[in-house]
Amino acid sequence: MKLFSSRLCTNIPKMLDFYSQFNPSPLSIKQFIDFGQNACEKKSFIFLRKELPVRLANIMKEIALLPTNLLGTNSVNQVNDWYLKSFEEVLKFEKMEPTHENLVGFCNQLVQIRNRHSDVVQTMSQGVLELKESQEGYVDQSLETSIQYFLDRLYMSRISIRMLINQHTILFGGREESKGRQIGCLDPACDISSVVKDAYENARFLCDQYYLASPELVINQCNNLDNTLPIRTVYVPSHLYHMLFELFKNSMRAVMELHDETTENLPPIHVLIVCGKEDICVKISDQGGGIPRSQIDQLFKYMYSTAPQPSKSDLHTVPLAGYGYGLPISRLYARYFHGDIVLLSAEGYGTDAVIYLKALSDEANELLPIFNKTSSKFYRATVPTGDWSNQFRFRSSTFRATVSISSTYLSN
Amino acid sequence: MKLFSSRLCTNIPKMLDFYSQFNPSPLSIKQFIDFGQNACEKKSFIFLRKELPVRLANIMKEIALLPTNLLGTNSVNQVNDWYLKSFEEVLKFEKMEPTHENLVGFCNQLVQIRNRHSDVVQTMSQGVLELKESQEGYVDQSLETSIQYFLDRLYMSRISIRMLINQHTILFGGREESKGRQIGCLDPACDISSVVKDAYENARFLCDQYYLASPELVINQCNNLDNTLPIRTVYVPSHLYHMLFELFKNSMRAVMELHDETTENLPPIHVLIVCGKEDICVKISDQGGGIPRSQIDQLFKYMYSTAPQPSKSDLHTVPLAGYGYGLPISRLYARYFHGDIVLLSAEGYGTDAVIYLKALSDEANELLPIFNKTSSKFYRATVPTGDWSNQFRFRSSTFRATVSISSTYLSN
Repeated sequence: MKLFSSRLCTNIPKMLDFYSQFNPSPLSIKQFIDFGQNACEKKSFIFLRKELPVRLANIMKEIALLPTNLLGTNSVNQVNDWYLKSFEEVLKFEKMEPTHENLVGFCNQLVQIRNRHSDVVQTMSQGVLELKESQEGYVDQSLETSIQYFLDRLYMSRISIRMLINQHTILFGGREESKGRQIGCLDPACDISSVVKDAYENARFLCDQYYLASPELVINQCNNLDNTLPIRTVYVPSHLYHMLFELFKNSMRAVMELHDETTENLPPIHVLIVCGKEDICVKISDQGGGIPRSQIDQLFKYMYSTAPQPSKSDLHTVPLAGYGYGLPISRLYARYFHGDIVLLSAEGYGTDAVIYLKALSDEANELLPIFNKTSSKFYRATVPTGDWSNQFRFRSSTFRATVSISSTYLSN
Repeated sequence: MKLFSSRLCTNIPKMLDFYSQFNPSPLSIKQFIDFGQNACEKKSFIFLRKELPVRLANIMKEIALLPTNLLGTNSVNQVNDWYLKSFEEVLKFEKMEPTHENLVGFCNQLVQIRNRHSDVVQTMSQGVLELKESQEGYVDQSLETSIQYFLDRLYMSRISIRMLINQHTILFGGREESKGRQIGCLDPACDISSVVKDAYENARFLCDQYYLASPELVINQCNNLDNTLPIRTVYVPSHLYHMLFELFKNSMRAVMELHDETTENLPPIHVLIVCGKEDICVKISDQGGGIPRSQIDQLFKYMYSTAPQPSKSDLHTVPLAGYGYGLPISRLYARYFHGDIVLLSAEGYGTDAVIYLKALSDEANELLPIFNKTSSKFYRATVPTGDWSNQFRFRSSTFRATVSISSTYLSN
């Protein structure tokens, strides 16, 4: 940090304060499409050179509030440096004329920034591991809560920044990255069932590799407009694919582990795709034995899922293993455009995983973290005394009198 | 209130302060059963004459913290008076010898208290209506949040107090209230599917009455111990019935309203009963068209569901209508022993409602509201500024600069 800071232009802290005062401007999928359809590079440039610093500054302010024992790790320092560097690089364009050269330079700069940040998730997860080790595995609840709160916001901010960068670089980057009808990385007529099939096939490939078998896929759809037509929506196919691939991997692993003796008549994975007026719902139902209700929340916690990263070779031999961040990050992708991922499990039977998307592109607004008093407070928050009794008697601070009251009842 | 207070023995406020210092002692279903199996009336008396005042005092302290415009309504005054009277009546036994006469007197007193409080839910809901009217229907978010918080706690406390009273009066009340193998109101071998059938049949009766038709029931079970045996658990059948009856009414209404033209081949209501190591899961799936995800939370809000109470005659002609508190209170019954009710809907298709129960009777502990700093704070809490952007631009207080940034992007 110190070494690095010296290389920064001196007024970066001032600029951070300035840009972090602004709320990020959430865009709807409709706005992304409308703009993309008659794209104007100059306008995008003028928008991004302010919006990117705003989004960067908002999250950088929260990095600075992290508990020192996490902020102090090499990995988090590394991430922080990346953000400072990128923030500084975007600001170079703050007052530049939108000449052809500058527009090209801006586009290249964005590509460079995107590449610089490509390892943020792995590096942060490394930082969390360093923290855990430094504390010999013990992390108190308030620390864990802050880290969960922060990582959800950091990764959401990152998804949104990559979205802005991708739209600009694909539309104006010159190279023919844009595929067919796609507008940037958005597909105005994304066929959900075909993304489901892609994700299933690729998960199945990994599953077959490792288990030498895999459950079948049964898709049903309910399109209330016209059920003979596939359900299409305006979305980022790569985001939807990311969620589906993760959920299929989990379902397949569960099914294969449960039926490890017999790979014959494995229960298929059922997918129901429904298009309503407000929601699009993709429900993935497996009979993989399910999970106890008490463990569902854990599946979305970075602290619990953080495990030493499998090496490339591991990834080859244990193809359904990952960095353990798959679920929480998939849920962020869903929530990014005001959708969600919900797991409903019947322990002893199987799990339903539901992806919700907004059916209307003007309701599919970006969900962005905002740096303000509420968020700052959060990093200083302590876990309050419970206002409900909990099942662990020793946890609740009852008067001795109370204990004797109940013991009277029990000593029977 | 004033009139009434004068009739109170003067040290009631002191006693309230004293008993509200204690945490209620949550009991597990196992403890209820163990005690009930070799019940000792004297011990129950000694336990209850302290535990009941503790539970009453804990919730009465929160009634006192209610916003004045709700506390001021006649209905809430009425409820408050009931609690004061009952608190005072239990305290009469505080120092009494457990003679036969006193034990009989205590038992009769408990019956009287139970009857006094039988209309608490309707009366509170009346109070909420009075509040709404006094505010011409407008209730700000922080007020609504406090009321939701309070009613969940008041009704949960009430469920727990009735449970204690019922156990005592059924076990020691002399009359042959106890049915067969039941221990008080607990069934040590509650056959879940038979409760499901009862609830279905009674909901169906109302449904047929009104719609002249009703969807069929299809039950599947997955008993990992032995799937030839029915799934049994230790539970309060009346609580389980209450939840199931409510959920069946909702599902039937949805199915009938969706298929109102044709009452032929109505999609059946599927019930899956699963017994895992930790959870018992009862999943009720209908094809009644579902609900938008945005409305699910509303279904559990007292403020939204509070509607003028249907008269007895209405209840006859509109048999599937209720006081609108059915769902939130059913969820409290589930949560009372650390279970839950979760709704997962696919708008345009149907809804899954899942009842979770703890599979192990020693994990099925009472969940009880505790009066302490955390809960007191809650009634003074104001709604903080959002730390995430939301889809209603006008709601988020952004600088003018931000608006112009985005408008640059949009004016295209």
